[in-house]
Amino acid sequence: MKNDLDVLMQSHNIDALLIVGSGKHNPAMSYFTGGAPLGQAYIIVVNGRTPILFHRDMERDEAAKTGLDTRRIENYHIDKIFKEVHGDMRLALAELLKRMFVDLGLTSGRVVVSGKDDIGTSLSVFSAFKEIMPDIELIGEIDQSILNAARATKDAHEIERIRKMGQITTDVVGLTADFLSSHTAVDGKLIKHGGVPLTIGEVKDKINLWLAERGAENPEGTIFASGRDATVPHSTGNREQLLHLGETIIFDLFPCEAGGGYFFDLTRTWCLGYAPQEVQAVYEDVKAVYQQVMEELKLGAPFKDYQLRTCELFEGLGHPTILKDQDTQEGYVHGLGHGVGLEVHEKPWSRVMGNDCLDAGSVITIEPGLYYPDRGLGVRLEDTVWIRADGVVELLADYPHDLVLPVRTN
Amino acid sequence: MKNDLDVLMQSHNIDALLIVGSGKHNPAMSYFTGGAPLGQAYIIVVNGRTPILFHRDMERDEAAKTGLDTRRIENYHIDKIFKEVHGDMRLALAELLKRMFVDLGLTSGRVVVSGKDDIGTSLSVFSAFKEIMPDIELIGEIDQSILNAARATKDAHEIERIRKMGQITTDVVGLTADFLSSHTAVDGKLIKHGGVPLTIGEVKDKINLWLAERGAENPEGTIFASGRDATVPHSTGNREQLLHLGETIIFDLFPCEAGGGYFFDLTRTWCLGYAPQEVQAVYEDVKAVYQQVMEELKLGAPFKDYQLRTCELFEGLGHPTILKDQDTQEGYVHGLGHGVGLEVHEKPWSRVMGNDCLDAGSVITIEPGLYYPDRGLGVRLEDTVWIRADGVVELLADYPHDLVLPVRTN
Repeated sequence: MKNDLDVLMQSHNIDALLIVGSGKHNPAMSYFTGGAPLGQAYIIVVNGRTPILFHRDMERDEAAKTGLDTRRIENYHIDKIFKEVHGDMRLALAELLKRMFVDLGLTSGRVVVSGKDDIGTSLSVFSAFKEIMPDIELIGEIDQSILNAARATKDAHEIERIRKMGQITTDVVGLTADFLSSHTAVDGKLIKHGGVPLTIGEVKDKINLWLAERGAENPEGTIFASGRDATVPHSTGNREQLLHLGETIIFDLFPCEAGGGYFFDLTRTWCLGYAPQEVQAVYEDVKAVYQQVMEELKLGAPFKDYQLRTCELFEGLGHPTILKDQDTQEGYVHGLGHGVGLEVHEKPWSRVMGNDCLDAGSVITIEPGLYYPDRGLGVRLEDTVWIRADGVVELLADYPHDLVLPVRTN
Repeated sequence: MKNDLDVLMQSHNIDALLIVGSGKHNPAMSYFTGGAPLGQAYIIVVNGRTPILFHRDMERDEAAKTGLDTRRIENYHIDKIFKEVHGDMRLALAELLKRMFVDLGLTSGRVVVSGKDDIGTSLSVFSAFKEIMPDIELIGEIDQSILNAARATKDAHEIERIRKMGQITTDVVGLTADFLSSHTAVDGKLIKHGGVPLTIGEVKDKINLWLAERGAENPEGTIFASGRDATVPHSTGNREQLLHLGETIIFDLFPCEAGGGYFFDLTRTWCLGYAPQEVQAVYEDVKAVYQQVMEELKLGAPFKDYQLRTCELFEGLGHPTILKDQDTQEGYVHGLGHGVGLEVHEKPWSRVMGNDCLDAGSVITIEPGLYYPDRGLGVRLEDTVWIRADGVVELLADYPHDLVLPVRTN
């Protein structure tokens, strides 16, 4: 949690954080600004002090709303700097950064850099910065980074924002189910008024509309894949495809607050009208493993234990898993889950080589699935849960797991 | 243009490009994939060869649609690498990168890195890569980078995509104008059926809906700012604010293709019902400068010449400009325009310290404006034009410049 930052910085022996990039769709920056729609900005967090937001003057109103200490980038007279360095952008931006650091009394120490930005620009500017500020060490962290560690557990305010996205997500999943069920099947295909078949593209457009109406967006896309597409876990589906009775649809919806903010993540598998026997059988295995794993989740336990447990359970039911054959495209072929927050995939991870635990405040997905590409068959169930400090594992949004979506036939 | 890449790489003495990050909202990657909705991926462009896309197996269908040469990241057995480096993600990702390079016969040379990604991760992985591949020099470029230079001029295929976004943008601006005009003003405020006043938030929600319906999104937000907000160029507007007769609205719409693709950029300034005399006067100055500059645009000319010309023209009309006082918040306070493509702001730039020219294939905005915060007054007009090889400056989407939006009064 954000409250842990000072302690994390101390334990990592870090004097400050530097966060760069745009204010939008930039998780590290949104973590501090709350998601203010800023353009290029900088945040410097000196250990023990209120974070400072350096923003463009044009965006002073948006910057003021963040509640951070703010400074105008224009105060540093970038135009004059440009002239001094003969129009060399690399040197100019390095000098700008130097002046911000000096202003905060930061002239030496270890500084962790973060933020989503063009890595070419960053490499270029940081190498110039190193030359003019030799006593500042700029450090890139990965996996066990201070910010990722803080962000891996959510405070009450963050939980409420994620819960609200969960409500929107289940609302839209429900609207999608109703929309599909409102169609009639003719010759095994869903048909619109006038006899024209419905396409997956039209369903996806509706989903986007319903999200937009609710102040959400899906910058990472939406998986609405049927038939063979549903057998490849991240295939997003083919817009031109029609919707057939008995066909499996994997609907994985992972929207975020508009402008880039907190995400939610939920998957349902549906069969239109009826479920063929082999789909029903695979679905029941996925559902059984989902329920078993959900019941076993425990505050503080290593996330990877449940990935191993899921493999064990699926193998017990006779399915191949990536534990036995990491290259398998059949059976259980992906991880059990991941953290959800300002990124749709973030810490904690369920990967077997990792060490992430289900710490209090973790928000994670549990998403077992089975895939049989040769049989045109794929099933996944996914929910997002909050690991509470009191040990309760709370579903942050609830939606029925029903496999069959009823459809009228003609 | 993309065709220029080989020559640009040669002239910069570069052996390859490495592009990292997600396939979504990552301009450098979209430039090669056309916007495939991939998660984490890598592209390596070796001079003179077809670019290679390294993708996750789960995304093989999306990868195949890009038309690039594709390779599965799983081929490199990241799990085994993890074990070899004892679960150290930094070393594992560096080793993965090394295996990709070695596979392409790239064991020495100068490689430009690009892509939008977490800069902490990149710094960390690249420093480890340097240790295991000492003969590869990873280079960050800025401003005059190879990719930015290529992207600054658009080929016919890109122009069509931008033109299509222009059509969507003007459609939505028209729908917004009609929506506002469909309301009645009571006591000087726009009122909905039932007598409740309309808010800017409701107008923005409509705009988002209309964009979503047309397969567009606005990841960078939308400026719909009235009254005092309109006097700060990048203020996005206050959702709770009501709409008053005679008040100035700056409506700056810059959507892109859904999932992150080509942008468009257009601004209109509107007064509801009538224009106060001082707004009308300022509007006429902006319009006159807009027309004059548009007429003078010439293939091959330095973009900054028109920024200087705009300052000269505004000063001739008695307005302060940033040319005379870079800190002014009154008068003409920003740049004349910018390139538009996979980013809403990209090369060529109109900045006075730069050297960008209006080369054939440039797509730029022309957006003079005047702001008087103390008088609650702001006016901007912006269109996006294509500098054609035959010297014609073509408006890529057309929408009337009318200042007054008619509104019924009661």
